[in-house]
Amino acid sequence: MADQHAQSGEDKRPSETPAIRWEELPEGPVLVLLDQTRLPAEEVELVCTDASALVEAIGSLAVRGAPLLGIAGAYGVALAAARGFDVEDAANALAGARPTAVNLSVGVRRAKAAYEEETAKSGDPAQGARAALAAARQLHREDAEASARMAEHGLALLDELLPGGGHRVLTHCNTGSLVSGGEGTAFAVALAGHRAGRLRRLWVDETRPLLQGARLTAYEAARNGMAYTLLTDNAAGSLFAAGEVDAVLIGADRIAADGSVANKVGSYPLAVLARYHHVPFIVVAPVTTVDLETPDGASIEVEQRPGFEVTEVMASQAPVTGAGTGTPVAPLGTQAYNPAFDVTPPELVTAIVTEEGVVSPVTADALAGLRGKVAGAGEVV
Amino acid sequence: MADQHAQSGEDKRPSETPAIRWEELPEGPVLVLLDQTRLPAEEVELVCTDASALVEAIGSLAVRGAPLLGIAGAYGVALAAARGFDVEDAANALAGARPTAVNLSVGVRRAKAAYEEETAKSGDPAQGARAALAAARQLHREDAEASARMAEHGLALLDELLPGGGHRVLTHCNTGSLVSGGEGTAFAVALAGHRAGRLRRLWVDETRPLLQGARLTAYEAARNGMAYTLLTDNAAGSLFAAGEVDAVLIGADRIAADGSVANKVGSYPLAVLARYHHVPFIVVAPVTTVDLETPDGASIEVEQRPGFEVTEVMASQAPVTGAGTGTPVAPLGTQAYNPAFDVTPPELVTAIVTEEGVVSPVTADALAGLRGKVAGAGEVV
Repeated sequence: MADQHAQSGEDKRPSETPAIRWEELPEGPVLVLLDQTRLPAEEVELVCTDASALVEAIGSLAVRGAPLLGIAGAYGVALAAARGFDVEDAANALAGARPTAVNLSVGVRRAKAAYEEETAKSGDPAQGARAALAAARQLHREDAEASARMAEHGLALLDELLPGGGHRVLTHCNTGSLVSGGEGTAFAVALAGHRAGRLRRLWVDETRPLLQGARLTAYEAARNGMAYTLLTDNAAGSLFAAGEVDAVLIGADRIAADGSVANKVGSYPLAVLARYHHVPFIVVAPVTTVDLETPDGASIEVEQRPGFEVTEVMASQAPVTGAGTGTPVAPLGTQAYNPAFDVTPPELVTAIVTEEGVVSPVTADALAGLRGKVAGAGEVV
Repeated sequence: MADQHAQSGEDKRPSETPAIRWEELPEGPVLVLLDQTRLPAEEVELVCTDASALVEAIGSLAVRGAPLLGIAGAYGVALAAARGFDVEDAANALAGARPTAVNLSVGVRRAKAAYEEETAKSGDPAQGARAALAAARQLHREDAEASARMAEHGLALLDELLPGGGHRVLTHCNTGSLVSGGEGTAFAVALAGHRAGRLRRLWVDETRPLLQGARLTAYEAARNGMAYTLLTDNAAGSLFAAGEVDAVLIGADRIAADGSVANKVGSYPLAVLARYHHVPFIVVAPVTTVDLETPDGASIEVEQRPGFEVTEVMASQAPVTGAGTGTPVAPLGTQAYNPAFDVTPPELVTAIVTEEGVVSPVTADALAGLRGKVAGAGEVV
């Protein structure tokens, strides 16, 4: 189950509320999430005492973003283990909570493997639970480190592609510290540019239907003092046409073996626009996002989300949480097409930036080499 | 000034409420508008007793859509004349109420010319006022006829381009009977296809920020019993990639002499997607939309609308009408880029369908010929 803790603005600065944290309370451990559906209006924490509360939080997008989903999945397994629930059941429910982001199941498998190995070795599930928690914490730390390295590689790439500096970067959805153990993926690159004095403007797509750009990326840009401008997703075309976009930076939820990139719906149209206008289209994601078991774009399962996210808008600060809870903006009975993601083929991707380096041009061989290097180092399960 | 009359659902069927009508009341003539900002939730009529109320209604988009703006502008001049206001002042205010749709100033000029000619001839401003009203009514009728001819030409073109039938058509913004004296422009073509049993699916872009697709096109599609599906603007890319779009049909607010098309923001990205996927991109507009005095796309003035349309969403059935009246979805102080239109260059337009025929390929000469034909026939001022 999940409780809500409202954070008062005076007690905590926004940047001090982490997207996810493990806490040991007298009554047992809990996983505390910053409820991202309530931002930017209010900072509310969701306290999960079991995996099913976390599954629900993942489904409602209270916790979201590919890297953070991996971390959350790992902590969820650790929570089930520590609380004495069936770890297998919890792992299955967590891994299936959303289908597209591969990081979620990778994180779940990693904590579960640690639990099983230690339990088998020691014969003590409590030892296994501690091992699962250690694995989740390790993943959390690694993600923060990966974030820093992606930012470094990404900024070097931007500087190389755009030697004049004064980068005007367009981004979509939210890829900052809210999705990561560190400062994120694509957003972290823009932030590094800002800190280096080389970001002229961050163009923020609002990202319909759930407005993660308006609600979350604008929030992160504002709190970092970046020069940013919000726009409707369909206004990006005018910016390209006016020559106001130097590069597109986005994250990824899954990268197939052939280099096809599944990311938030609206990414593919940006890739087509970028190609038409000869603007670099850059994907920033940790290597765990590369899924060699998914051969190509057509094999990526794209989550279809409920139509009410499109046919209703929030009537208050709270997001649309179920059919009929928002204000209808379309006639009753209107059917909506609402894929959460789209798939960009590798030929439209200028480069994939990972913590292990940059892949450009994007080819199956280059991706396999990258993934192999990491697997060889034994860092990724 | 404007009054509001709510229409009860039991008294009137939706299709019986016209977008605009002239009414002679005992206290004088009025122009009655269906307030499009309140659809689809409720049908409210705005009663304008002077041109300044109409200017306000145009600015708030209570009345909108290129052809209808022309009709409204003409009636507005007639209203000022009939009520004894300064016609020159009213005409200037009306023509400047929105900068991009050329039809607005064309309609205003036409009624004003009729007023001036008749007043000069008869020496009686009351005679002039009747002439202005006759001109507005004539424009209204012509627009309805033009609508029917555009639908015919457009459907013939669709059948020619897509000989298999079962058309799956994507449209953007709203171009139906709400914008026209008849059944509209692009929407009228889709509707003709529906009536002929050859429309398999109308894909309706929601059209951020003001959601004219969700609120108005879905409403018109529903009341005509069409098979339609609503989507966020950024989900169109997935439909193209899946081969689910056979043609794009949009309207136009101004077509420059070189064939550049200004239309609702989000049209240009669809044109680029359509080109990338070898899908016909078809513009449907009356010849009055072609403005030979605007040489090219760069010369088209694009209206920039206030940022709160992007940074706030409606908190109730009422639309966002001013900064701070909606629910904020972005951090306070967020700057937004909010162009109302974008411009699609002629090389991305497969065809322009008008009531006088189809222009394809789109060239300056072909457009000049079309416009010349009409001017020669003395039908358009």
